[in-house]
Amino acid sequence: MRRIALLLVAVAMVAGVVASTAPASGTADEDAAPIFGIKIPPGYRDWKLISVAHEEGNLNDLRAILGNDVAIKAYREEKLPFPDGTIIARLAWNYVPSEENNKVFGRSQSFVAGSPTNVQFMVKDSKKYAATGGWGFAQFKDGKPDDKADLKTCFPCHEPVKARDFVFTRYAP
Amino acid sequence: MRRIALLLVAVAMVAGVVASTAPASGTADEDAAPIFGIKIPPGYRDWKLISVAHEEGNLNDLRAILGNDVAIKAYREEKLPFPDGTIIARLAWNYVPSEENNKVFGRSQSFVAGSPTNVQFMVKDSKKYAATGGWGFAQFKDGKPDDKADLKTCFPCHEPVKARDFVFTRYAP
Repeated sequence: MRRIALLLVAVAMVAGVVASTAPASGTADEDAAPIFGIKIPPGYRDWKLISVAHEEGNLNDLRAILGNDVAIKAYREEKLPFPDGTIIARLAWNYVPSEENNKVFGRSQSFVAGSPTNVQFMVKDSKKYAATGGWGFAQFKDGKPDDKADLKTCFPCHEPVKARDFVFTRYAP
Repeated sequence: MRRIALLLVAVAMVAGVVASTAPASGTADEDAAPIFGIKIPPGYRDWKLISVAHEEGNLNDLRAILGNDVAIKAYREEKLPFPDGTIIARLAWNYVPSEENNKVFGRSQSFVAGSPTNVQFMVKDSKKYAATGGWGFAQFKDGKPDDKADLKTCFPCHEPVKARDFVFTRYAP
């Protein structure tokens, strides 16, 4: 039952992610994600690459997973658990066929990053986020935090990879 | 006819890329790519992300396009042509379904980066590579340069995007 509940939560989360729009502004602290109080880390777009992925289904995106220097060092040294200060960023863009590329290849085979969907962060602070495996979770769309209860579902979905400190993405060499 | 010839060349290139294996070592200068004399740029794995993509068909990969600081600056300033010193790296990994992720999502939708296939570089030097639009091209597999005639096909395939200085990949915000 618990597993089924988690899956339902996961599906709801995914649906929520896709359905979410930028929240109305006007709150006092609109840059901080609810629950975990995480703001967009400055310069995250310059971080080093951990890996890439593609999600089909409702997400239908191409994604890049970047890490701050603490994260990259831990990944490359295969050091678990990730130390405090680790931040992992998941960027995603709509999955778009490239007619331009397909012409050159002579067949429909090429998919590229379209407009951005949202950005997620995992922030490691073993004390502050002790209740959720030491990780805080945040999601931003168009620079605005997700202000829904969706963030409550992040940790349950990450629990299956507890052995890798709750992080799904493996480093791509 | 010329367009058809280019397409054939493109297909041959893709087939060649997929079929290629690491060349036998033992040459005097095995780190330099033939034709263009390009070596693997030190630290390219730490470069910033330009975009991501997925190729189906024979390539069947997930790819990340990274750029050195000159490249990233030019991209963000939308500056064309790319200045000399620009290097663009295309990393690619086998396209692998993630059973682990699919379990959490409750459906088959997740694809991640598997083992690396090869790495390509475009190096801008408007004088040295004047005959090929100012770009030198290189491909490495397992750290070894592609020693085939395939590199001759790089520039013809890039010609359709002459208006973007022969670079297909657009910056993903």
